[in-house]
Amino acid sequence: MEILKKITECKSIVDDIKKRGLTIGFVPTMGFLHEGHLSLIRKAKKECDRIFISIFVNPLQFGPGEDFKNYPRDMKRDISMAGNAGADYIFYPAAKEMYGQDFKTAVEVKELGDIMCGEYRPGHFSGVATVVLKFFNIVKPDRAYFGQKDYQQLVIIKRMVCDMNLDVKITGCPTVREKDGLALSSRNKYLSAGERKSAAVLFGCLTEAKDMIKKGEKDLEKIRKTIMTKLKKNRSVRKVDYFDFRDPGTLEHIKRVNKENRNILAAIAVRIGKTRLIDNMIIKV
Amino acid sequence: MEILKKITECKSIVDDIKKRGLTIGFVPTMGFLHEGHLSLIRKAKKECDRIFISIFVNPLQFGPGEDFKNYPRDMKRDISMAGNAGADYIFYPAAKEMYGQDFKTAVEVKELGDIMCGEYRPGHFSGVATVVLKFFNIVKPDRAYFGQKDYQQLVIIKRMVCDMNLDVKITGCPTVREKDGLALSSRNKYLSAGERKSAAVLFGCLTEAKDMIKKGEKDLEKIRKTIMTKLKKNRSVRKVDYFDFRDPGTLEHIKRVNKENRNILAAIAVRIGKTRLIDNMIIKV
Repeated sequence: MEILKKITECKSIVDDIKKRGLTIGFVPTMGFLHEGHLSLIRKAKKECDRIFISIFVNPLQFGPGEDFKNYPRDMKRDISMAGNAGADYIFYPAAKEMYGQDFKTAVEVKELGDIMCGEYRPGHFSGVATVVLKFFNIVKPDRAYFGQKDYQQLVIIKRMVCDMNLDVKITGCPTVREKDGLALSSRNKYLSAGERKSAAVLFGCLTEAKDMIKKGEKDLEKIRKTIMTKLKKNRSVRKVDYFDFRDPGTLEHIKRVNKENRNILAAIAVRIGKTRLIDNMIIKV
Repeated sequence: MEILKKITECKSIVDDIKKRGLTIGFVPTMGFLHEGHLSLIRKAKKECDRIFISIFVNPLQFGPGEDFKNYPRDMKRDISMAGNAGADYIFYPAAKEMYGQDFKTAVEVKELGDIMCGEYRPGHFSGVATVVLKFFNIVKPDRAYFGQKDYQQLVIIKRMVCDMNLDVKITGCPTVREKDGLALSSRNKYLSAGERKSAAVLFGCLTEAKDMIKKGEKDLEKIRKTIMTKLKKNRSVRKVDYFDFRDPGTLEHIKRVNKENRNILAAIAVRIGKTRLIDNMIIKV
């Protein structure tokens, strides 16, 4: 496995691979890899000839007061894990390699980037879209893989790829979970032992919502209120950013189950202590 | 020459050209071609194997109350002129082919897009950057050609290409002028006979500024004020949007000629009757 720090280096390798008629699979990450990332790399390995992952804690997608500086990093461990999972190249640029002094371009996916997590993290999804488009232009992947845990991000990237006429095929992969249902996330590292136990509440709420829908409840607003009330009573939940039912394609609110909704996205974002955690579930009706 | 209306059609031809190892030159236009456009096509023809031009009056780059509906169109004439100048393909998409119902992505080049013309045409340069990036992703040119008449646009496109790690080489080509100095523009068609005569004032001001600098005047603010006073007295000029001296690279204001300024951009935007005209000159010092 090769580690590439320079854009020109990466582009020249990509050119060679393309000339040989081989396909490129790409998994963008912020490092501190876990089984979720590895499942993406393994999926890419099955479908593509050469696998690139990027490890880049992207300053653009962190707001003031967020955890850019403290975001967990462990490059040595990441290299070994990525290699074992099947990555051929790690693109690992410095911030100044990605954003020169005169950098001024921003990509925005309107509306989709302003709701849900975007409401609580202004500029976050523009930072994501901008860096991902840069990566796509550098790595020129045939396919790119994103976790469904960041569901809104996946929808935004798909929208951008379609709008900007890119040739890359975007694949969303299932969320990998701990035994108690907690979605794997590099940010789980921030949790104290007590917080870690409490963090199962996210998956708990999603499951409860699913069960209520499966039992025939059509009034999603009623389910939402029930769950919000529970969450607000839960002492280990410091703040609820949202618990929402949305259309999985457009991310528009859904208030009632009807014949048009084949699938419903239930999505949650809460703060456990100082840690912001998100999760979601696609509920088939 | 082939006329392509569909993105998929265009992409498939581009793929074939790339597979044969040929280079692509690209000239984006809004049609109603004039000698300025043709000079870009001829330049492209000298440097590239296959020449694409786009003809697309891009709704995104027109503000409310601007001339989107009235923008001059003459496809029959354009086809013949482009063909004679050496174009191999005209990409001529409908607006709904470029912007589907769910289109939500915007590309912005911050600061550079908000000054000069951007101050008077909010959103204009974001519309330009967005459509040009889409074109680049569809046509995948090795080289793209832009007129220096739209100097700010050229700087913004170069910045975007660098920021987004695109492989296309951007070439700016000299402004083509009428005998009295008026820069060629499709919008000159709007001018009445009287307005057409008055329109020579733009080139007149730029030339006057150049002469003053060449004669040794270092105080650009003084020159600016002299010319602004003249322009305001000129009855055929309905409104002056700006007359400015700027750094040709960064578009920052320059107030004085000093050793750091090898080149100075003089730029002007005025309204003659209902028509907004722009022009500029790079003055070597």
